[in-house]
Amino acid sequence: MTALHDDIIVFDGLNVSNFDRSVYEAMREGGVTAANCTCCVWENFSDTMRNVAKLRKDIADHSDLIMQVTAVDHIHEAKAAGKTGIVLGWQNTSGIEDRLDRLELFHGLGLRIVQLTYNTQNYVGSGCYEGRDGGLSDFGHDLLAEMNRLGVLCDLSHVGPKTSEDAIRASSQRVAYSHCLPAGLKAHPRNKTDEQLRFIAEHDGFVGVTMFPPFLKNGPASDLADYLEAIEYIINLVGEDAVGIGTDFTQGYDQRFFEWISRDKGVGRLLTDLGEIINPDGMREIKDFPNLTAAMERRGWTRSRIEKVMGGNWVRLLGDVWAD
Amino acid sequence: MTALHDDIIVFDGLNVSNFDRSVYEAMREGGVTAANCTCCVWENFSDTMRNVAKLRKDIADHSDLIMQVTAVDHIHEAKAAGKTGIVLGWQNTSGIEDRLDRLELFHGLGLRIVQLTYNTQNYVGSGCYEGRDGGLSDFGHDLLAEMNRLGVLCDLSHVGPKTSEDAIRASSQRVAYSHCLPAGLKAHPRNKTDEQLRFIAEHDGFVGVTMFPPFLKNGPASDLADYLEAIEYIINLVGEDAVGIGTDFTQGYDQRFFEWISRDKGVGRLLTDLGEIINPDGMREIKDFPNLTAAMERRGWTRSRIEKVMGGNWVRLLGDVWAD
Repeated sequence: MTALHDDIIVFDGLNVSNFDRSVYEAMREGGVTAANCTCCVWENFSDTMRNVAKLRKDIADHSDLIMQVTAVDHIHEAKAAGKTGIVLGWQNTSGIEDRLDRLELFHGLGLRIVQLTYNTQNYVGSGCYEGRDGGLSDFGHDLLAEMNRLGVLCDLSHVGPKTSEDAIRASSQRVAYSHCLPAGLKAHPRNKTDEQLRFIAEHDGFVGVTMFPPFLKNGPASDLADYLEAIEYIINLVGEDAVGIGTDFTQGYDQRFFEWISRDKGVGRLLTDLGEIINPDGMREIKDFPNLTAAMERRGWTRSRIEKVMGGNWVRLLGDVWAD
Repeated sequence: MTALHDDIIVFDGLNVSNFDRSVYEAMREGGVTAANCTCCVWENFSDTMRNVAKLRKDIADHSDLIMQVTAVDHIHEAKAAGKTGIVLGWQNTSGIEDRLDRLELFHGLGLRIVQLTYNTQNYVGSGCYEGRDGGLSDFGHDLLAEMNRLGVLCDLSHVGPKTSEDAIRASSQRVAYSHCLPAGLKAHPRNKTDEQLRFIAEHDGFVGVTMFPPFLKNGPASDLADYLEAIEYIINLVGEDAVGIGTDFTQGYDQRFFEWISRDKGVGRLLTDLGEIINPDGMREIKDFPNLTAAMERRGWTRSRIEKVMGGNWVRLLGDVWAD
C-alpha cells in the first residue's frame, strides 16, 4: 500500500460482490474506506428485505472489519477506526415493488443510494437495454421526490438516456452515474456519450467511473492504463471535482450470477452478452485497490486530484445529498 | 324480461362488482349468460391469487347460480343450465408482478382476459392517465406473445394510446377494448377517439361499450338512451359485428373502492375525479339488464343486431382467441 493510498479516503461507488467475510477482508486489505454495496438488483420487496437483513447481520457479525455508513461522519469514523464502511445501495427500484412508502422503511434501515431502473423498464422508467425509453414515469417523479425528501442519492448508471435526462432535470438534489464508462472510448448501450456526461455535470451531477471489462475499450484484456484513460477522458469532459470511482467489483460470483444479471428480471430474455468478466490487469480483485492509487501517482496526477477522485468527491456528493 | 332477452346469449364484457351471492342472484335475475369478472386491478401476485381463490370458492359454493367459463362451450352450457358463467379477468398485469411464467399459472386456474395496464405505467406499458405513453415495453412484447400462445384475450380499455397501438400491431390474436366509450361524444382520457376505434376494428379487433357514468356525455344524469347513443356511435364507426357490451358494473362497492381505483396503484396520487357513480337510469343494477334489450327493441334494432351486440359478437371473439 502506498503511503498516499493509506492516507486518503477511498470510496468505491459500486461494489456488487457476493458479500461475506472474505470480501470484507479484501476491502480492508485494499484500503477501501467505504463502498456502495448493492443489496437489490432484480429482487422484489421480500427478497430485498432478506438481502438487507443479511448485510445488517454481516455488519454485526464482522464488526472487527466493517461498520454501517448512513452519514458522511460514519465514513470518517470508519477511516479513523481502520474499518470499511458499508453503504446500503440498490441498482433497481424493484425492492419497493409498487409501494412508495416502502422507500422510507428501507431508508430507516440505512438505504442511501438507489438506481432508478436496472437495464429494462420498471414502474419508474426505462433501462439502458430497453428498446425504447419512454422517460421517467409519473410514479417515477413521485419516487424521485421521495428520494429527494429523504436524502437518498439517485443513481442513473443503468438507466435509459431519456429517463436519465428527465431525472437529472427533475431532481432537487445532485444525482450520479455511480459506475459508467464513456461511449467516446467504446460504443455500448451501457456507456454514456460525451453529451450525457456533460449534461449531468452541467446540472451539478457526478460521474463514478467503472472498470467492468465488457464496457472498456479493450474488454477483458484491459489493464489499469485503460481504466485510467477512461477516468481521464471523463475528467476532461466534466472536471476533476465531479468524478469518482465505481469499480463494479463482482467478487465471489460465478457464471450463474452474470446470467442472472444479463436476463430481463433475472430470468427473461437475454439483454446483453457480457462475455468473459476479467477485471483489468492490476485491479483484478478488491485487495488490489492500492495499485489504482499507485498508477495515478505514476501517471503524474497531483495529490489533490488523486484525493478527490479516489474518494473526496464522493464524500462531498454524499454530504450534499444525505439528510443525516 | 322480454322474450328476446330470455332467448339470446347475454355477455357482459366487464363486471367489477363486489362479488357475493347477491351479485350472482342479480346476474340470474338480469339474464346474464356470462360475464368477464375482474379479479385483479392493482393487486400483486399474492393478493391476486387470493382473489382467484375467492372467486373459485364462490363458483363451488354457489353452483346453483354460477359456473366457471374457460371455453366458449361453457357459455352455451351456462345458457342451457340457466346459470351465469364466470370468466376470470384482470384489469392489470400486476398479478404476475415481474414474472412471465406466472401467467401460465393463472391461465391454468381459468384466467382468460387480461388488460395490459391499469391507468398508469407498469412493466408492460403505459395507462390512459399516464402523463406520457412510452408504448409497449420489451417485457410487454414478451407478455403479449405469451398471452397469444396461451389464448388469453388482450384487453386495452384502460391502456394508453401508444401502448394500445403497439399491442394491436404486435398481437397475433384479435384484441379488444372490453369496456370503453367514444371520445367523439365526450372528451376524456379514458374514452377512445374515432381514429382509435377505427384502428382496432381495421385490425380485426373488438369494442365493448361501457356505461360507466363519468365517461358518458351526461355523466350521472345519463339514461339508457345515452348508452344506446354511444353504442350506435361505435357501431357506425366499426360495424355491428365488432361491438359488444361491457357495463363496468361496480355493484356492492362504496366510495372507498372508487378512491382505491382512482389512485395510482391504489394508494398514490389521485389520477382522476370520477365524481358520483350513478349508473344510467333504467340500468342502475345488474338485475336491470333486460331493460337494455328492451330499449334496443324499442329503438327498432333488428333481432340480428341485438343478438350480436348483446353477446353473439363476444362469443365469436372469445372463440377466436381462446385456445380451449
